[in-house]
Amino acid sequence: MEGVDHLAHERNKSEFDVDAMKIVWAGSPHAFVVSDRISKLVASDPGFRKDNRSTLSRKELFKNTLRKAAYAWKTIIDLHLSEEEAAKLRFYVDEPAFTDVHWGMFIPAIKGQGTEEQQQKWLPLAYKMQIIGCYAQTELGHGSNVQGLETTATFDPQTDEFIIHSPTLTSSKWWPGGLGKVATHAIAYALLIVGGREQGVHGFIVQLRSLEDHSPLPGMTVGDIGMKFGNGAYNAMDNGVLRFDHVRIPRNQMLMRVSQVTCEGKYKQSDVPRQLVYGAMLYVRQTIVADASCALSRAVCIATRYSAVRRQFGSQNGGPETQVIDYKTQQSRLFPLLASAYAFRFVGEWLKWLYADVTQRLQANDFSTLPEAHACTAGLKSLTTTATADGIEECRKLCGGHGYLCSSGLPELFAVYVPACTYEGENTVLLLQVARFLMKTVSQLGSSKKPVGTIAYMTRVEHLMQCRCGVQRGFAELSADLVEAAVAHCQLLVVSKFIEKLQQEIPGKGVKQQLEVLCNIYALFLLHKHQGDFLSTGCITPKHAALANDELRSLYSQVRPNAIALVDAFNYTDHYLGSILGCYDGNVYPKLYEAAWKDPLNESVVPDGYHQYIRPLLKQEIRTARL
Amino acid sequence: MEGVDHLAHERNKSEFDVDAMKIVWAGSPHAFVVSDRISKLVASDPGFRKDNRSTLSRKELFKNTLRKAAYAWKTIIDLHLSEEEAAKLRFYVDEPAFTDVHWGMFIPAIKGQGTEEQQQKWLPLAYKMQIIGCYAQTELGHGSNVQGLETTATFDPQTDEFIIHSPTLTSSKWWPGGLGKVATHAIAYALLIVGGREQGVHGFIVQLRSLEDHSPLPGMTVGDIGMKFGNGAYNAMDNGVLRFDHVRIPRNQMLMRVSQVTCEGKYKQSDVPRQLVYGAMLYVRQTIVADASCALSRAVCIATRYSAVRRQFGSQNGGPETQVIDYKTQQSRLFPLLASAYAFRFVGEWLKWLYADVTQRLQANDFSTLPEAHACTAGLKSLTTTATADGIEECRKLCGGHGYLCSSGLPELFAVYVPACTYEGENTVLLLQVARFLMKTVSQLGSSKKPVGTIAYMTRVEHLMQCRCGVQRGFAELSADLVEAAVAHCQLLVVSKFIEKLQQEIPGKGVKQQLEVLCNIYALFLLHKHQGDFLSTGCITPKHAALANDELRSLYSQVRPNAIALVDAFNYTDHYLGSILGCYDGNVYPKLYEAAWKDPLNESVVPDGYHQYIRPLLKQEIRTARL
Repeated sequence: MEGVDHLAHERNKSEFDVDAMKIVWAGSPHAFVVSDRISKLVASDPGFRKDNRSTLSRKELFKNTLRKAAYAWKTIIDLHLSEEEAAKLRFYVDEPAFTDVHWGMFIPAIKGQGTEEQQQKWLPLAYKMQIIGCYAQTELGHGSNVQGLETTATFDPQTDEFIIHSPTLTSSKWWPGGLGKVATHAIAYALLIVGGREQGVHGFIVQLRSLEDHSPLPGMTVGDIGMKFGNGAYNAMDNGVLRFDHVRIPRNQMLMRVSQVTCEGKYKQSDVPRQLVYGAMLYVRQTIVADASCALSRAVCIATRYSAVRRQFGSQNGGPETQVIDYKTQQSRLFPLLASAYAFRFVGEWLKWLYADVTQRLQANDFSTLPEAHACTAGLKSLTTTATADGIEECRKLCGGHGYLCSSGLPELFAVYVPACTYEGENTVLLLQVARFLMKTVSQLGSSKKPVGTIAYMTRVEHLMQCRCGVQRGFAELSADLVEAAVAHCQLLVVSKFIEKLQQEIPGKGVKQQLEVLCNIYALFLLHKHQGDFLSTGCITPKHAALANDELRSLYSQVRPNAIALVDAFNYTDHYLGSILGCYDGNVYPKLYEAAWKDPLNESVVPDGYHQYIRPLLKQEIRTARL
Repeated sequence: MEGVDHLAHERNKSEFDVDAMKIVWAGSPHAFVVSDRISKLVASDPGFRKDNRSTLSRKELFKNTLRKAAYAWKTIIDLHLSEEEAAKLRFYVDEPAFTDVHWGMFIPAIKGQGTEEQQQKWLPLAYKMQIIGCYAQTELGHGSNVQGLETTATFDPQTDEFIIHSPTLTSSKWWPGGLGKVATHAIAYALLIVGGREQGVHGFIVQLRSLEDHSPLPGMTVGDIGMKFGNGAYNAMDNGVLRFDHVRIPRNQMLMRVSQVTCEGKYKQSDVPRQLVYGAMLYVRQTIVADASCALSRAVCIATRYSAVRRQFGSQNGGPETQVIDYKTQQSRLFPLLASAYAFRFVGEWLKWLYADVTQRLQANDFSTLPEAHACTAGLKSLTTTATADGIEECRKLCGGHGYLCSSGLPELFAVYVPACTYEGENTVLLLQVARFLMKTVSQLGSSKKPVGTIAYMTRVEHLMQCRCGVQRGFAELSADLVEAAVAHCQLLVVSKFIEKLQQEIPGKGVKQQLEVLCNIYALFLLHKHQGDFLSTGCITPKHAALANDELRSLYSQVRPNAIALVDAFNYTDHYLGSILGCYDGNVYPKLYEAAWKDPLNESVVPDGYHQYIRPLLKQEIRTARL
């Protein structure tokens, strides 16, 4: 069977240039080349093997992750990889680890909130991994409400130190990745108290563990918070708990770019605008949107390939059964997710541009687009992560029973992905922020301040101009409805950016046509799903709704012959996909069969426990058995 | 902290008689007493401890499940439990195991499909667990389409035997629970071949393993199919793979209640109507609907209690923050699920009655209500399992970050529950069956055959009476829309049965009023969710839709003070809930903190792997490290 492409007949059907689409998906020819090279490098190196993860115990899994992280770093050094290539390598290693937080949060926090001096001291250590950092913000009792954190940092002018302390059980730091067992340092957030006055929450660099023997420093009670959802998944990460008992740190370890505490115990603001701090938040959320398209496309790739392999019902005269991808019920669930993967990819690209634009403006002290950028990033983070989490699970269900096996890759993909709905801004909380931005915009519609950019469309809504908006008072009461409005606004963004993408020149035979079909599917699927909103506001008639539905069916038929090629365009290796059901050659059944025998339970024919627990049942000796 | 009820203030708020509601939930005073007694018995016996499941390796988990199954059986015997009590005990032990299949599928299959003689031979052995059975239907390549199974059972008149054989890789039996490591016997489904002619798929009793040493009998290749979704969860079950190599069994081991093969090699039907076989399918699906309300109520109980404990934002003058259950965004997601749990409970009760009714009719050769009963059972299985799987995950998200911890109980509840969407009739396949039933009913509306029972409403839809229904031809093309119609029909059933329940006398102060509120929430939430369907068909106006929405908000306020009591009414022990977030006393944070330290990673302060993989990083010795 080796080497036979069981999906060749599907690939032959496609009507567009897959290689050109790969470049569209990657973003540029350069991005494609880097991504392609690094993904193949990781896939071909047995040091990055990951197919055994689901059967490892917590300790084995964690130790193996430590090994991989070290091995990845060694590879990066040995091959002199650039920063871009190193980031890609960590991405394709595809295992949550303390390094994610070190590179993705600890270093950016120092860059964003540290003074020049602090950056010069700490960044070289961090870049060489002479120290390993984590990001200790959330507490056992406090997540979304950062201003409610209980940890205190009290300035002691006598010693020129801060005393970091956890006054209550609920103030224990809880969740930070890398904290539990690995990090030597943390950016810890705490309520600053200077001269008896509370000055809000600030970040502090705190050393956690000895650099000699890794033991926790005095005053630190630190450990792992325990098992999390799923096999493998985030159990490779040492999310941690930390209690401070009057831990002293030098004054210069408060991150002081925006506010300072002087040695005399004076609290003051620098001339660096506060708003700069938002930059880091925008950056992280923007990457989460990009990651959403990766995770969703991965699940869609698995489900699409397997739907072409799997056959059920419809055999004619003893011939083969129908491929499940040919059923309209399967198409109507799968193809909108395929379209979503592409839609999220493009809106993610746009968000990356928006982030670059707003960063440039912030540096020029232009804060005018910040509220809009914040609303876009928060809203799209919420929308894409919710849709992706649901979409992965839908793809798993679309794979029928076999999707429930770990070897399908989908259970772990789901378990690894879902926390994205909660971290870096809980999704409902974020939508409420978008709603507040929208309500503010509406309330200003009558004024001279005309909305521009992504909210310019509001000026076209005549009746809004005449509204006396009562929401300002009853916001909390109407919040569930406002969340729906915020989602609608964000969906408009996704659709608009997809359409804008199609207005650009896109080379490659048939590539643009395929994207047009996907864009129409995305838009019409949404219209169908939310037809109540369109109908109740009189935007469409029932006749329109029915026509949209007819058109959707026709679009599904147009995607069908191109479906496999459209997921091939993601250019994922079998290693990265990590799914027997999604393997490139479609040779699913022999691989499933072989993989089964590797389960630890199959190490012996008669299971451990037979003599104590099964035989006494069968032999009717249970009453005297020792259990 | 021990002994303090942190939710007492919530319990004091409630406006109804919780004890009376407990009896409504249980179904009867008798059912309450049995359930209450057995759940407490299990909860108080350390032999049934389950809080350590997520950290066990596959082999440890499986062995522990074998022990529990044996211990449960010993308890049942020692305490002389009745069949009803024994079933409850297995339910509250709350761990998937081979015994589920033995009692829930193997024995019912023999009862339903075996002749009197076969029942007399096999049932006593099974009842005493002298043999342990599984149900080997699905194959690696075949699930929903039972008639497409490839395993063959060829009659050999020379020896009066059947030869059971797996002709291909895809014909390997795949998924049967208990098959992998435990079962001594299977009901194996195979294509019957008599005298060279195929006679459809039938069930056969096949011995798998020696009753002396548990080794597989000659011709059997049998093992476990590997890890499945989640920590603990269904990994306690040995779902198996089995290949037959010309295995011979006596002729009298074909289940012959409906069809027989004579020793001369003649295939014939008995005078027992084929339709009787459907009885078993109805029975199993009916229990799945009952189980849905259990699983959903469990998740809702956890999320509701935790939402009352958790506070975030809204602190006034340094006072406590707002309980998250007081946010409308939380209520609008949580309370419809609370209402759904009750709705599914009552429709489950009705389905139990329907099953009893149809069984009685079948025994009297009255098949008239069978198609309707089949449609109701299939549709409600699909609707309730989909809603429950989604609802559990929604409850997990409603618990914020901490819902992602295994100690919240929700990850395992989800992972254990989701296969219900796929097994015993894949949910989309079932909805298509309902759609076919509905289309058939519509096509007969003009005839003299008037629809009765759950489809009687169709006669009231005037325009349907004049329809020339074109769906018969274009069924496959329109299948996605037909699935939506089927869901709507099933939702109508759920709402109707909830309303019918409220027309009965329901004792207890305030009990009926609370149920009325929940019923209205359920109905109006659906109306809101599907307002597009109501608007496009002119059933409601946009004004109505807005009014419904206002009313929903008001209903949420009415539920709010009763929310904790409404989940207390499920009468779940902390053991059964298996969730720190959902514990009865609401003392969440100290328990989370304590549980964390039990993780295997916390056995040592410095983690295993530090010297090999962390220290070389910090000491800049990675290039020479052995990784």
